[in-house]
Amino acid sequence: MSKYKLASLKEDGKRTTFKVENIEIGKDFLMIAGPCSVESEEQIMEGARLAKEAGANMLRGGAFKPRTSPYDFQGLGRVGLKYLRKAGDEYDLPIITEVLDVRDIYLVSEYADVLQVGARNMQNFTLLTELGKIDKPILLKRGMNATIDEWINCAEYILKGGNNKVVLCERGIRTYETFTRNTLDLSAVVAAKELTHLPVVVDPSHATGRREMIKPMSLAAVMAGCDGLEIEEHPNPCEALSDAKQQLTGEELKDLIKAVNETLKFRESLK
Amino acid sequence: MSKYKLASLKEDGKRTTFKVENIEIGKDFLMIAGPCSVESEEQIMEGARLAKEAGANMLRGGAFKPRTSPYDFQGLGRVGLKYLRKAGDEYDLPIITEVLDVRDIYLVSEYADVLQVGARNMQNFTLLTELGKIDKPILLKRGMNATIDEWINCAEYILKGGNNKVVLCERGIRTYETFTRNTLDLSAVVAAKELTHLPVVVDPSHATGRREMIKPMSLAAVMAGCDGLEIEEHPNPCEALSDAKQQLTGEELKDLIKAVNETLKFRESLK
Amino acid sequence: MSKYKLASLKEDGKRTTFKVENIEIGKDFLMIAGPCSVESEEQIMEGARLAKEAGANMLRGGAFKPRTSPYDFQGLGRVGLKYLRKAGDEYDLPIITEVLDVRDIYLVSEYADVLQVGARNMQNFTLLTELGKIDKPILLKRGMNATIDEWINCAEYILKGGNNKVVLCERGIRTYETFTRNTLDLSAVVAAKELTHLPVVVDPSHATGRREMIKPMSLAAVMAGCDGLEIEEHPNPCEALSDAKQQLTGEELKDLIKAVNETLKFRESLK
Amino acid sequence: MSKYKLASLKEDGKRTTFKVENIEIGKDFLMIAGPCSVESEEQIMEGARLAKEAGANMLRGGAFKPRTSPYDFQGLGRVGLKYLRKAGDEYDLPIITEVLDVRDIYLVSEYADVLQVGARNMQNFTLLTELGKIDKPILLKRGMNATIDEWINCAEYILKGGNNKVVLCERGIRTYETFTRNTLDLSAVVAAKELTHLPVVVDPSHATGRREMIKPMSLAAVMAGCDGLEIEEHPNPCEALSDAKQQLTGEELKDLIKAVNETLKFRESLK
Repeated sequence: MSKYKLASLKEDGKRTTFKVENIEIGKDFLMIAGPCSVESEEQIMEGARLAKEAGANMLRGGAFKPRTSPYDFQGLGRVGLKYLRKAGDEYDLPIITEVLDVRDIYLVSEYADVLQVGARNMQNFTLLTELGKIDKPILLKRGMNATIDEWINCAEYILKGGNNKVVLCERGIRTYETFTRNTLDLSAVVAAKELTHLPVVVDPSHATGRREMIKPMSLAAVMAGCDGLEIEEHPNPCEALSDAKQQLTGEELKDLIKAVNETLKFRESLK
Repeated sequence: MSKYKLASLKEDGKRTTFKVENIEIGKDFLMIAGPCSVESEEQIMEGARLAKEAGANMLRGGAFKPRTSPYDFQGLGRVGLKYLRKAGDEYDLPIITEVLDVRDIYLVSEYADVLQVGARNMQNFTLLTELGKIDKPILLKRGMNATIDEWINCAEYILKGGNNKVVLCERGIRTYETFTRNTLDLSAVVAAKELTHLPVVVDPSHATGRREMIKPMSLAAVMAGCDGLEIEEHPNPCEALSDAKQQLTGEELKDLIKAVNETLKFRESLK
Repeated sequence: MSKYKLASLKEDGKRTTFKVENIEIGKDFLMIAGPCSVESEEQIMEGARLAKEAGANMLRGGAFKPRTSPYDFQGLGRVGLKYLRKAGDEYDLPIITEVLDVRDIYLVSEYADVLQVGARNMQNFTLLTELGKIDKPILLKRGMNATIDEWINCAEYILKGGNNKVVLCERGIRTYETFTRNTLDLSAVVAAKELTHLPVVVDPSHATGRREMIKPMSLAAVMAGCDGLEIEEHPNPCEALSDAKQQLTGEELKDLIKAVNETLKFRESLK
Repeated sequence: MSKYKLASLKEDGKRTTFKVENIEIGKDFLMIAGPCSVESEEQIMEGARLAKEAGANMLRGGAFKPRTSPYDFQGLGRVGLKYLRKAGDEYDLPIITEVLDVRDIYLVSEYADVLQVGARNMQNFTLLTELGKIDKPILLKRGMNATIDEWINCAEYILKGGNNKVVLCERGIRTYETFTRNTLDLSAVVAAKELTHLPVVVDPSHATGRREMIKPMSLAAVMAGCDGLEIEEHPNPCEALSDAKQQLTGEELKDLIKAVNETLKFRESLK
């Protein structure tokens, strides 16, 4: 009777939660931080140290990067995965990284705790189908021009395969507005939580593309009801090989997470 | 040097505030509530009573309604203004209403404390120019497809005429997404406060068009830094002559305003 | 039974035509050309001469200009209307110009043969209502973010007042694409002709904002079934006070109209 | 110096052409027709017969279908490829079909003459990279929300691998308009031919989603300068398993191709 056979929120209102190390996603707030790309062992180590110190509970870093131009930096690949794993282990942070290619699923799974499907691949149905067969959580970004309905149907592709550890991630949609990189659609968080039982995370870094907007949009996202945030942070944003304008410094991240935690406590008190 | 001669935030960081009755807009949080349209004396009286009781500090109600079809209800006109004024006086609430026609500015000014320019009229430059010459505050809604830059330029039209009491209002932009009526762009609140010294208000009713989203989006808007909210409320939403699906009951409004006030206190504590 | 009481194409398939001077709009192809703005008597005289020579049958020129910023050139106003009239008379071309302000309708009507409603004013319902009461043809541009349904409803506002001389004009819609100024939606021409009995004109100048696209898009528009074109042409495009990049020279216009006329003949032969 | 290292049109103005059987793509007009999906041997045989009879020179048919929901018909897979090949051989038509999965490239290449990359996979960079290594022409559809620049960069991914047989295909972009399935952007045809040396094809079936618009939009596309068309045609559109509303009958296709051929002749005469 439900609109989405497996993804729909059922009448009992029960929401999906699942463990990644000691975080119970869907219950504990997921605070992902780290650089856009893994650039070197030193950079990701330092990025991880800053993320940990700031209070993040998961480390991100791209090893395979989807880039508009084939001449842009495409990521370090397997070597990047190794560095990311090492940094996660060193600072006791589970790691999340993007899988671009259906043939890399097992490679990426060897290293990562959570696999990310990027916005450009949201409707890569063969990738989704294969990810339905593995036993790792999947963070599914909303496509730049995807309707909420299409996004949830993509989660359904993964669920249908038997993998029920799916996290949805709103990351901004493409509109005519050019002041921001994309337009963050926080009503999609409310919609996704109303329509499905899946945890919903927000990525204000890609959504806004502007450093000064990340904090207010993060706090707004918390009040919209999100279950986590994914924030880009870099030891030295100006030198970042990708997305330099939207990555926070360690100090900025610490300040952000502190405010997020207070807002979470406030949100809890409001119920 | 500023991008917008008059609207730009200057180096001193000074923000515009101004009084409407005993509310200091830009400093006190503006909590506008009331029905989409003034439908009858009883309806607006009851709407005002509920708004007051719920804790609103300004009453809205449309007397001149911009409607897609010429055969839809176009508002009660002058009679609607009278009822709205009477209701505002009865419950000691200043009133805000839309002015559609440059020829109605003086008529509307006689009754209303604040004049609203609707999204469809945002770039009605002759209207803006005339509103620059009067001594009443203007709430300028962002057009459905207006860039932030165009919106601020429209404020500039009013300011240029000598009227510096301008409030900006984000009300959702038109995108491909159809689950919500429009897409609420909260990053525009951050942008407008960063680029200008004007107060910025958010209308989650028109932005979402869905009753259940109004509360979470209102709290998110507060955390994004807005200076006020405009909420549609109706004594009997199901019977509303326009926008029935997005109007709150008195009870819902009371619950909303309570949460908004707590969130404001929390926001204050965060600084 | 029709969707639009007055605008809908009826079962008899009869289409609206009406005379402006010796052009039967809806039957004869309407070839409007002229500068974006009337800038001086010399400029519009020369613009008219070139338009006539190139084969246009109506002269355009803005006297009241809707501009994003209040500090941009706003048009010459009444003086511009006089120059435009003089140029039209000199070269025996009926004239079309935009009316921005409901209070200017009678002034503009004194001079112009056809009144244009610009994209930003498409839903200026008071303007539409007043234009319904006059006996001059109205060219109604589609709003930058207007659905086809909203656009036809705006025509309905004019028709409802008793003025049945309405021409629809597609001029590009706002999308995320930035290579072109707007995105020309030629399927809207087919839709408008299928849904209504009104003539439909296309403005490729504003739609593309790129000189080199105007000819191919004009020929494409003819094959999509349009009843006319509106083209910006300037004696000296580089010195134009507005829209310099999209105005054709006299030579380019002549080349364009020649190709349009051949395409029209071909279209006729195809039936 | 060129914006796109390999895709850019060089100063010599030389355009890419290449042979598929006896069609020289980029020089001969490419007229692709056939059903959305291969549904059965009989259906594709009959579809091919009608396509041939109508004057098409290439046969399309989906064997692997990207569908919004995992519960929708996903195509016949390898069996579909066999039927398609058989139908192409029977009626002496080269065949084009979509490849969804990087692991299927060699399978699809065994059967198909041209491989199609769908809109949802436009930025599936691993797929593009692998397609750069094979010796079959690739038809690259523009993503539903892709800028012209992103689209050309995706072609660059294929070219960079050494495969220079790339055809671009405009198939409509996603906008707020809901009357049509997408908004056909014919100015993108002009842009793509101005910026690159690659052939550009138009798919009015997916762009409009409305049977009655396919003919006028096809003729418009020809006048915009396209090098080919891709049209959905089905022996019995009403019973089609996908996209029923936009598939032409054999008769409609014949009528369309006749008009396209006359328009091509006219276009030639215009130069």
